Amino acid sequence: MSDCPTHGLMDVDVAIAQLQQAGRAKTPEIEEVTLAEALGRILAENIVSTVDVPPQANSAMDGYALNAADLHAEMTFIVSQRIAAGSSPVKLQQGTIARIFTGAVIPDGANAVVMQENCQVQSDGRVTLLQTVVEQENIRPRGQDIEKNQQILQQGERLTAAKIGLLATIGKATVRVYCRLKVVFFSTGDELVDAGQPLAVGQIYNSNRYLLQALLNSMGFIAIDGGVIADNLPDTLHAFEKAAQTADVIISTGGVSVGEEDHVKAALSRCGELALWKVAIKPGKPLAFGRVNNVPFMGLPGNPQSVWVTFLMLARQFLLNYQGQRLALLPHELPVVADFTVAKAQQRREYVRVRLEPSENGLVMVKHPNQSSGVLSSAVWADGFALLEKGQTVNKGEQLPFISFASLSIA
Amino acid sequence: MSDCPTHGLMDVDVAIAQLQQAGRAKTPEIEEVTLAEALGRILAENIVSTVDVPPQANSAMDGYALNAADLHAEMTFIVSQRIAAGSSPVKLQQGTIARIFTGAVIPDGANAVVMQENCQVQSDGRVTLLQTVVEQENIRPRGQDIEKNQQILQQGERLTAAKIGLLATIGKATVRVYCRLKVVFFSTGDELVDAGQPLAVGQIYNSNRYLLQALLNSMGFIAIDGGVIADNLPDTLHAFEKAAQTADVIISTGGVSVGEEDHVKAALSRCGELALWKVAIKPGKPLAFGRVNNVPFMGLPGNPQSVWVTFLMLARQFLLNYQGQRLALLPHELPVVADFTVAKAQQRREYVRVRLEPSENGLVMVKHPNQSSGVLSSAVWADGFALLEKGQTVNKGEQLPFISFASLSIA
Repeated sequence: MSDCPTHGLMDVDVAIAQLQQAGRAKTPEIEEVTLAEALGRILAENIVSTVDVPPQANSAMDGYALNAADLHAEMTFIVSQRIAAGSSPVKLQQGTIARIFTGAVIPDGANAVVMQENCQVQSDGRVTLLQTVVEQENIRPRGQDIEKNQQILQQGERLTAAKIGLLATIGKATVRVYCRLKVVFFSTGDELVDAGQPLAVGQIYNSNRYLLQALLNSMGFIAIDGGVIADNLPDTLHAFEKAAQTADVIISTGGVSVGEEDHVKAALSRCGELALWKVAIKPGKPLAFGRVNNVPFMGLPGNPQSVWVTFLMLARQFLLNYQGQRLALLPHELPVVADFTVAKAQQRREYVRVRLEPSENGLVMVKHPNQSSGVLSSAVWADGFALLEKGQTVNKGEQLPFISFASLSIA
Repeated sequence: MSDCPTHGLMDVDVAIAQLQQAGRAKTPEIEEVTLAEALGRILAENIVSTVDVPPQANSAMDGYALNAADLHAEMTFIVSQRIAAGSSPVKLQQGTIARIFTGAVIPDGANAVVMQENCQVQSDGRVTLLQTVVEQENIRPRGQDIEKNQQILQQGERLTAAKIGLLATIGKATVRVYCRLKVVFFSTGDELVDAGQPLAVGQIYNSNRYLLQALLNSMGFIAIDGGVIADNLPDTLHAFEKAAQTADVIISTGGVSVGEEDHVKAALSRCGELALWKVAIKPGKPLAFGRVNNVPFMGLPGNPQSVWVTFLMLARQFLLNYQGQRLALLPHELPVVADFTVAKAQQRREYVRVRLEPSENGLVMVKHPNQSSGVLSSAVWADGFALLEKGQTVNKGEQLPFISFASLSIA
């Protein structure tokens, strides 16, 4: 299936395509929320405007509304009404002008606005126009921004702050969105101790637990901590089956390599199914994908750097699709100059942790000195990934695709 | 103060510097939160590791631990112990090897690991090594990733998912962060009607209310809806004074232009102080900055596009600093090719709403056709801003700085 089947590794793009397809197999339940609750949620309906925006022609300026046909030699007029924003004007009396403010409705009989800077109020209250205007000048026509029956947003979009503002613009008070996915996450490994506890010899602190929780929360999922699974088959099986009763998706870290101490695969062979992928991704490689009963399951590697990359580049693609998002799923890859050299080609696509730093010609990518560290220091230091294809070498000054962490919504 | 005082406009960078400085005048109260609650919060302490990571030398592979000095002609050894990750080994019996798994502690007396792929288990249980190793091979030394007493994070940093993972790595269970700012927001304008209500003639739906709320929420502030202020002085004054009792910051939209109907300035002259800035920013320009009693106040324009830009480029700089954030405040400006021409130079710096679209040479910036629309259509459509300096023209194919919306944490 891969374009490059050397070494039996699955191409990253093939893995992404399979995860996207699996994520599209079903959409979540739908709920209705208010705009105040809608930030970050995925639209479950197309949004069509029921109004024109603006609903009536209105003034683009503070000034005077008039009928352009009245502009002859005589440019001094009686002000026959005052129209504030929000008020309802009467028909403009012929041969007069109306004081008007930005956003206020143009009265019937008027067809242009003179801005106040070009007017002079006389002592008798009449106003002299110092400049002439043409029809429709300084008027925002009805429906200029949005027309009634126009579709403004689409099912499957993520609701950003701007989109919520746009929904408010057409007076939409509530919106149908997909229910947030409940993701139960586990870590595996008898060596793991929770933060705040003392360490015995051989033990290390569990970082994946908090990393996964924060990643899931930052993407708007309901992250449910399933705890740490002991390194034995009965506990693994029990934990997975219990999680499947409430979870929409189950994710674990560790336990998917070939070691004797890994029980995830054995458990899944009894209560579901599992494919162990070897993806041509670095850091990363092993990824388990399957199901516990009918709940999708993803098993990520145990090394936090590998969790970071496989979650953001692979698991995220399944999760977004399964959450109902159908648009803007892949992060932007901007061409940016590399301030480093990679002389030795890799056999996997590498997601190099880079920081953007200023240079004479704008920002360039600087590489973290320790790309292999097991801990998250380089991910903390970096602004994003430089994407180095398998087999590719790079000379300093060449461009590579840059994926910012922020574009993955995890800043 | 501005580099370019033409037209009496304040330079955008001068406005940013003044807002940053004002934001640094004070830091918020401090509270202690668990790692599970820390995502997006601003660190109020420097973080120094109290442990080595890894805490002991451990195996980088599944394989066999041995003393490299024992590797002579005879390469078949008795396996004297089995060391799983998380267990505490005994001293390696001289002349034997130990079965060991990834992450497990190297026993005293061993100084290298042979990976299991290079070993053959004999029928009597002894193991033959097919390859030799040198001292320290396949061993991760104690403190390789993080050393005890090393500072890993700094006061004033925003806690991302990766940083939370790193805090967990050193066993930190709770962390001191700045209390979230309470931001009371208002909209002004008698023409505004709330979503879900019918529109009378002259009325429009209030979009700034929901836009501001979503922007504030997406940045992690506590957004408190102060409602809509009627266009008169007593109501404006009352609303501001009431808000100042609970707010850390007050923000309003509209009401800061020169029209007769704007009462914000009059109110602030009685219960605080206010400077009306004309910033050389497009869209935007008017920005009010001052205080209600002792609570900082920012008045944004009334046009949603102007709110969008002035909030993200100006108000955000005050808010982040006032929240205690001191690092990574300005968004990255990546040089990206413009797929459009700007023939006419502007007298203000323009934040052009652009979308990234593929071309032969990677992503290029395409400009939204309607940059002047009052509603948020272009902000919804766009991926970010192209930054066009005042006086600058652009030919298609030239580069401009690109600021992604995602880099402003508002995706």
